[in-house]
Amino acid sequence: MNNKLSKDKIRILITGGTFDKEYDEINGRLFFKDSHLPEMLSLGRSRLDVDVRTLMMIDSLEMTDADRAMIAEQCAAAPGERLVITHGTDTMSETARFLEGRVAGKTIVLTGAMIPYKFGSSDGLFNLGSALAFVQVLGPGVYVAMNGRCFAAANVRKNKKTGSFEERE
Amino acid sequence: MNNKLSKDKIRILITGGTFDKEYDEINGRLFFKDSHLPEMLSLGRSRLDVDVRTLMMIDSLEMTDADRAMIAEQCAAAPGERLVITHGTDTMSETARFLEGRVAGKTIVLTGAMIPYKFGSSDGLFNLGSALAFVQVLGPGVYVAMNGRCFAAANVRKNKKTGSFEERE
Amino acid sequence: MNNKLSKDKIRILITGGTFDKEYDEINGRLFFKDSHLPEMLSLGRSRLDVDVRTLMMIDSLEMTDADRAMIAEQCAAAPGERLVITHGTDTMSETARFLEGRVAGKTIVLTGAMIPYKFGSSDGLFNLGSALAFVQVLGPGVYVAMNGRCFAAANVRKNKKTGSFEERE
Amino acid sequence: MNNKLSKDKIRILITGGTFDKEYDEINGRLFFKDSHLPEMLSLGRSRLDVDVRTLMMIDSLEMTDADRAMIAEQCAAAPGERLVITHGTDTMSETARFLEGRVAGKTIVLTGAMIPYKFGSSDGLFNLGSALAFVQVLGPGVYVAMNGRCFAAANVRKNKKTGSFEERE
Repeated sequence: MNNKLSKDKIRILITGGTFDKEYDEINGRLFFKDSHLPEMLSLGRSRLDVDVRTLMMIDSLEMTDADRAMIAEQCAAAPGERLVITHGTDTMSETARFLEGRVAGKTIVLTGAMIPYKFGSSDGLFNLGSALAFVQVLGPGVYVAMNGRCFAAANVRKNKKTGSFEERE
Repeated sequence: MNNKLSKDKIRILITGGTFDKEYDEINGRLFFKDSHLPEMLSLGRSRLDVDVRTLMMIDSLEMTDADRAMIAEQCAAAPGERLVITHGTDTMSETARFLEGRVAGKTIVLTGAMIPYKFGSSDGLFNLGSALAFVQVLGPGVYVAMNGRCFAAANVRKNKKTGSFEERE
Repeated sequence: MNNKLSKDKIRILITGGTFDKEYDEINGRLFFKDSHLPEMLSLGRSRLDVDVRTLMMIDSLEMTDADRAMIAEQCAAAPGERLVITHGTDTMSETARFLEGRVAGKTIVLTGAMIPYKFGSSDGLFNLGSALAFVQVLGPGVYVAMNGRCFAAANVRKNKKTGSFEERE
Repeated sequence: MNNKLSKDKIRILITGGTFDKEYDEINGRLFFKDSHLPEMLSLGRSRLDVDVRTLMMIDSLEMTDADRAMIAEQCAAAPGERLVITHGTDTMSETARFLEGRVAGKTIVLTGAMIPYKFGSSDGLFNLGSALAFVQVLGPGVYVAMNGRCFAAANVRKNKKTGSFEERE
């Protein structure tokens, strides 16, 4: 380990997921409107140099490989080397592995939430703080930051029963 | 940079600060009772291997060098090499510099909050996620993790006007 | 109008509705577990003499006339004359009219919420305070307390587009 | 009791109190800025016809009889007969008794909060819903609406130990 922190601008790519779900009080369903990322960065008093791009606003169970190819393109085309991707947890590990190998020389950290930010008890703020820290320090590669931990893309899965992320055997 | 993440147990030392302030509804003043750290870790769905010790519950403006010496002893005596210290923001930079040089061979990250966790709009969850990420990746040294950023103890100060942390000139 | 406030014990009957919906972080759906009524009364620092009974925990779109007959029985069988019923908003007006005529000599106030209490931005606390006030002052009859207002059962409907309650023409 | 609900416009007079206190993150003190009343009415999905006037923004321990005389004048001068006053809890009972006798023929309900609205766990929303309900139904007089209950001005005091309102012996 060493102590170098990157000062590069960080690009945040938004793809939706539980992070950004809201409650529609007219029909009682969960839905997507705008991302809460800017509000969360402001709440966290973040002074990082970031720019935020919304690529899509979908449940990750509905994410196709065409969507993933578009995310990979956006990662490759980004001017800087450090990216955070907000993503639904259900297929976060799959997207991480998809990006690995397709995007070289960049540090990419995927994160998300188990509870929508708007529901007042979200793990989203904790995870966002964590992902933004890991992306400043880790070398090139694709990672998943959840549960306070950081996993290499090749070695992570969501445990469907507990909802936690863990190493694959 | 490299990609090694420590899997050591992390010790969290609690010293008080805005993080843990509550509102006393009988007399209308802010006060300390118990730490909210365990609740925050649970809210963040943290699966990190941590142990939490409360050293004191004070406003950092009241922290003396005797208090700081005690914190340094606790850091040195901790079995592991990775520690997070929750601390009031007003003298966080001073404590960081005090610890530097007095505790060798350990990674120590100080963090805190501008708004009490109980006030529902705290930066505390974001900062805690950030500090726990930095402490897993950085090499030995004393750091301050605030505003999404991480500063070496020698090179940090709180800007009293903006409330943000920044590099010293 | 006069100024008599009842000091009778108030019975609160819980039937579910948006009031009590929670977010299931494993499958991403809304569901019912326990009622939040006791927590809400405690948060509101209520010192009213109440007892709380959970009759069912359902979405009001699923409420049948058999369910409504059971609610009417419970109202009639309650020892006191003052009842508040928490209820989903979609069929609250229908249940109010069902109870009217079937339960005589009692003051019954139905209330609910547009946003689940657990989502941190609920109108539930406001409505609960309102319903508990109306039930102490109004004479026998069945009422709906929503949007800060109170409607007689015979003259209320939910506007499906705005989500607000209003007089029927 | 009868069942008449007033449909008059309700005037809300704001005087400050815990209701509206905020946390100053630069100096760590509680302070007043703008009233949260409009936000609370919106959160409660209130459809009542109200107008809101801010008379002062003070801690009720600092309220003088000159302030109270001004409040009485504002009550008398208001075009309608129904008023809600938000007020610090420490001297709410005193102000209620001051207004009684000085303002005739109007229904005036004082309310407040033990916890600031901004602290995310406020009894304020509950009390506001309660006060707005009582003011629509009760006849002329001055009342205090706290803890889900409603007290005549002549017969109320705050219990300094428990923080609750109760009848005077």
